[in-house]
Amino acid sequence: MLTSESKIRVRYSETDQMRYAYYGHYAAYYEVARTDLMRKIGLSYRQLEDMGIIMPVVEMKIRYYKPARYDDVITVKVIVKEMPTARIMFYYEVYNEAGDKTNEGYTLMTFADMQTGRPMRPPKILLDAMRPYFENE
Amino acid sequence: MLTSESKIRVRYSETDQMRYAYYGHYAAYYEVARTDLMRKIGLSYRQLEDMGIIMPVVEMKIRYYKPARYDDVITVKVIVKEMPTARIMFYYEVYNEAGDKTNEGYTLMTFADMQTGRPMRPPKILLDAMRPYFENE
Amino acid sequence: MLTSESKIRVRYSETDQMRYAYYGHYAAYYEVARTDLMRKIGLSYRQLEDMGIIMPVVEMKIRYYKPARYDDVITVKVIVKEMPTARIMFYYEVYNEAGDKTNEGYTLMTFADMQTGRPMRPPKILLDAMRPYFENE
Amino acid sequence: MLTSESKIRVRYSETDQMRYAYYGHYAAYYEVARTDLMRKIGLSYRQLEDMGIIMPVVEMKIRYYKPARYDDVITVKVIVKEMPTARIMFYYEVYNEAGDKTNEGYTLMTFADMQTGRPMRPPKILLDAMRPYFENE
Repeated sequence: MLTSESKIRVRYSETDQMRYAYYGHYAAYYEVARTDLMRKIGLSYRQLEDMGIIMPVVEMKIRYYKPARYDDVITVKVIVKEMPTARIMFYYEVYNEAGDKTNEGYTLMTFADMQTGRPMRPPKILLDAMRPYFENE
Repeated sequence: MLTSESKIRVRYSETDQMRYAYYGHYAAYYEVARTDLMRKIGLSYRQLEDMGIIMPVVEMKIRYYKPARYDDVITVKVIVKEMPTARIMFYYEVYNEAGDKTNEGYTLMTFADMQTGRPMRPPKILLDAMRPYFENE
Repeated sequence: MLTSESKIRVRYSETDQMRYAYYGHYAAYYEVARTDLMRKIGLSYRQLEDMGIIMPVVEMKIRYYKPARYDDVITVKVIVKEMPTARIMFYYEVYNEAGDKTNEGYTLMTFADMQTGRPMRPPKILLDAMRPYFENE
Repeated sequence: MLTSESKIRVRYSETDQMRYAYYGHYAAYYEVARTDLMRKIGLSYRQLEDMGIIMPVVEMKIRYYKPARYDDVITVKVIVKEMPTARIMFYYEVYNEAGDKTNEGYTLMTFADMQTGRPMRPPKILLDAMRPYFENE
């Protein structure tokens, strides 16, 4: 299992007049955590794109339990439970400073050639970077 | 059944370097369509908030089939299939100019008192505005 | 002189907890109006990019007089006062439904080759599209 | 003189199809740096709002020299050169990892009562927190 945690402070720009972090911003918060996880395994998402590979999102689900508010520091935990196949699933859990889970969700992503947009297998370099986290489990 | 359609042109600010409308912006596109639907039944979401009622999102799911791109005009169809109870479900279907469904999803929402944040029943004024769309079905 | 007007309804996602349209979103509102102006002269910004030309912003200034609020329909008037040289200046005036000017500003933009990022002269096709608005003035 | 520096990593959601951090997002980056500066002097902007005081932006200007790109870590330096009067001016300088100034600007802000929206003098608690940085200069 591969996990990573990112701390994000809610920006004023991300609040709405309900005084909540707008429900649509979690997609970006999740992305930040996902990017940090990939950096942690030594293959940044930027490097993947530099190799001509993009990872489009094909499905996202979010359950909202409690709002986050301006200036709150939230912890976004991201979890990959299985080695990628044609798809890769990222799970997310968001916690507030009191330790309450405020939100959870997932994004299901594929791999595609940046030029043609065609689906492709996960690149070997990514599989190699991820494998150590899944051996002997 | 209650439905409404909104046309939205994808802004440059909404693109990402994948040349797609960023996957996180659909939450805002859905919100635009939802707002238009409520205006159509004669009870705008602004009016609801002026009465001290907010409608927090408790769950969102999106399936992405095809990207939308800069300057595309997408059609967001929003559908309410059942009268609200303690919750109200909005379904969304997004179409591109060629008529392809590019994306679909739902948001499940509740009703809460703006001051206390406490859950509440759907307001009578909303039920009255929606009822005509569900009678004799 | 070349002018165009765009009507934009403030989205919930664009509000902040001050109950204003967030001050940073005007850059996107201006962009919508600019895009509409270019479409009006028959050369959309999308077409320009398809020809390999980008128009980076080199300077932006905004004066805020009054806030816009959720669900308000604002009118963004955009004005080009002079034919482009190496640069092109767009002026913006934003009005609320009562006709008050709520905000004004400008963006100064250049022309660059998308591949190399190098500055370039304004493309002839753009000059030709704009010229009729500046003749006999 | 009062200064503060904030490091911000450009998010994928903040890129546009020009492969730049969208020019409109600097308003939010500036806000992050401003928020950090206020926290540094011991009076967070959140606390100010909790006391019923808001600080609307009345003017913003940005000069863009170079783009920031996805995953870049930019340094936003914010500078207050003078004690606030009815207004407070924040200057910003943005640097990339190579140390180049990529962008600079300012925001001019006022103080207002959150309930009435009326302008007010800067609160004594803010003046007291800032004064030590301007004495003996």
